[in-house]
Amino acid sequence: MEGAPLAVSLGDPAGVGPELIAAAWAARHTHGLMPFLVTGGPEILRAAAKRRGLQVPVRAVFHPHEALDCFDHALPVLDGADGDYRPGEPDRDGAALALASLREATGLARAGEVAGIVTAPVSKARLAEVGFEHPGQTEFVAYACGYAPGDAVMMLAGPQLRAVPLTVHIALSEVPGQLNSALIERKARIVAMALIRDFGIANPRIAIAGLNPHAGEEGRMGDEEARIIAPAIAHLLAEGLAVTGPHPPDALFTARARKTYDVALCMYHDQALIPLKALDFDEGVNVTLGLPVVRTSPDHGTAFAIAGTGRADPGAMIAAIRMAGDCALRRLGLYDD
Amino acid sequence: MEGAPLAVSLGDPAGVGPELIAAAWAARHTHGLMPFLVTGGPEILRAAAKRRGLQVPVRAVFHPHEALDCFDHALPVLDGADGDYRPGEPDRDGAALALASLREATGLARAGEVAGIVTAPVSKARLAEVGFEHPGQTEFVAYACGYAPGDAVMMLAGPQLRAVPLTVHIALSEVPGQLNSALIERKARIVAMALIRDFGIANPRIAIAGLNPHAGEEGRMGDEEARIIAPAIAHLLAEGLAVTGPHPPDALFTARARKTYDVALCMYHDQALIPLKALDFDEGVNVTLGLPVVRTSPDHGTAFAIAGTGRADPGAMIAAIRMAGDCALRRLGLYDD
Repeated sequence: MEGAPLAVSLGDPAGVGPELIAAAWAARHTHGLMPFLVTGGPEILRAAAKRRGLQVPVRAVFHPHEALDCFDHALPVLDGADGDYRPGEPDRDGAALALASLREATGLARAGEVAGIVTAPVSKARLAEVGFEHPGQTEFVAYACGYAPGDAVMMLAGPQLRAVPLTVHIALSEVPGQLNSALIERKARIVAMALIRDFGIANPRIAIAGLNPHAGEEGRMGDEEARIIAPAIAHLLAEGLAVTGPHPPDALFTARARKTYDVALCMYHDQALIPLKALDFDEGVNVTLGLPVVRTSPDHGTAFAIAGTGRADPGAMIAAIRMAGDCALRRLGLYDD
Repeated sequence: MEGAPLAVSLGDPAGVGPELIAAAWAARHTHGLMPFLVTGGPEILRAAAKRRGLQVPVRAVFHPHEALDCFDHALPVLDGADGDYRPGEPDRDGAALALASLREATGLARAGEVAGIVTAPVSKARLAEVGFEHPGQTEFVAYACGYAPGDAVMMLAGPQLRAVPLTVHIALSEVPGQLNSALIERKARIVAMALIRDFGIANPRIAIAGLNPHAGEEGRMGDEEARIIAPAIAHLLAEGLAVTGPHPPDALFTARARKTYDVALCMYHDQALIPLKALDFDEGVNVTLGLPVVRTSPDHGTAFAIAGTGRADPGAMIAAIRMAGDCALRRLGLYDD
């Protein structure tokens, strides 16, 4: 393996992050994972692996390139911060450690010392207690790269569906007021560019959802399709992008419809997240598009309630690591399609 | 077969209804369908079956009970109205025939001469041209039974999910204003009673969705959960109903979550219809709860674009007929669980 490894941040040590990272390393050959290192927490990872019954030798490394040599026989962990492994019992120290790990992973990526980052789940409420001022990890990574939060586009990707929510963590009643043609166009362009560059799709087909039932049925149930969405589509088409819509939202996620596009652009959080999780819950990846840094994350939370029980499914973590590796190789021109 | 058959309305003769009815009859043994008759359109059914390459002898009958004897070897059709079979070319005559067929099926059910009705798809726009003043067939059946439109509850049911949308054909921006605790409680009671009576579920588990992302995250993204949904849940629990929620909408339709309830009560059209169609498009049934008449319908439209091509999948029509039969037998106390 040439080049640089990936960096995986630890996540909240009371959550399922550490055990899923250990489980992903244990499955590295089965899933053909690119070498990765974890930014901090060697003792936590040892304890998490042991509790899960996994044989995971942890190797402290001092520079990312060391990870390439040892990854095959040990889980490389960047020496430094560590803490207690107390599954299901989040505290301030754990949140501080999660934040330090995220900062370190992002810094290594910015410096070009790792090829991309995978972030394990954190508790936003706990992070806020230790001074984290961003709505989530996506916005933090954008900020660390010198980008505005709106320039980072969250895409959810599973084996059956890729979906981008144009609005995210706002009340449903605020969604119609937040939509505008410029927003749709700007995000569609970022998505198109990222699918070309990071996903190797030469001419990405972007299906744009309507907002209202039946996409408004010609204005009988809402006018956002005609007033906001259709004009954006006209602009994007004029630019040569392969966009379609506005589609009736409930028709857009059937098995047949999903074959007709590479990504669905959705108007609100649950329009994207409901079908993604209904279809692909255990393998959903959250990938950040539009930044100079490749960043993915398993599309689930800290799951404090089942941390340490061995019940958490590593599928999404494995998929996130694999996707980050694929995207990183494509950016480097090394991906072998 | 004792008792009465089901009545199936023809639907728009330019749509996929007639051919799917013929295909369902041809599959009657495979799927153990209860005897049914079609209200009108013998020539249309003959032509539709022929075009699909199906051997379907059509038998004109004059009273529903005749259907019981002939169903095994011929498709019974109530003698009377007929018309031209012109797939993909809807016109006023076809809409008038569809309406006459719907009226007749409903009348027979009201009179107790059939055990329930299955309605094939119609074009609402076409029906409006021939004087139909209801938003859809569901409201018509409620009206014909002497019920207010709000007393008929639409449930979508597939092999993997049952879901009830509390609001339906309104703009998304109007949804928050239309929700209130009384609406949720009234519909939940109707749903609970129907699942007991028509579906044989002794103590139905009803999962009630939130409106906002993450069910509002304790008020950070919308207050409808605390202000409207939670009080309704408290009332329903006090009455002894097995309700849970408000659930984060995107977590409610995962494979694991779906095992924890019998029906999901959803706040708006696409919250229910997106997961249903993503999971179960080809077998989705629209079933009307709360009326004295059993009524189901395949959960798809007239599909004028593919009518007559043989490409329309009969799965939903077959599922609708089977479900109507099961519900009717349960109401009669004849269902053998």
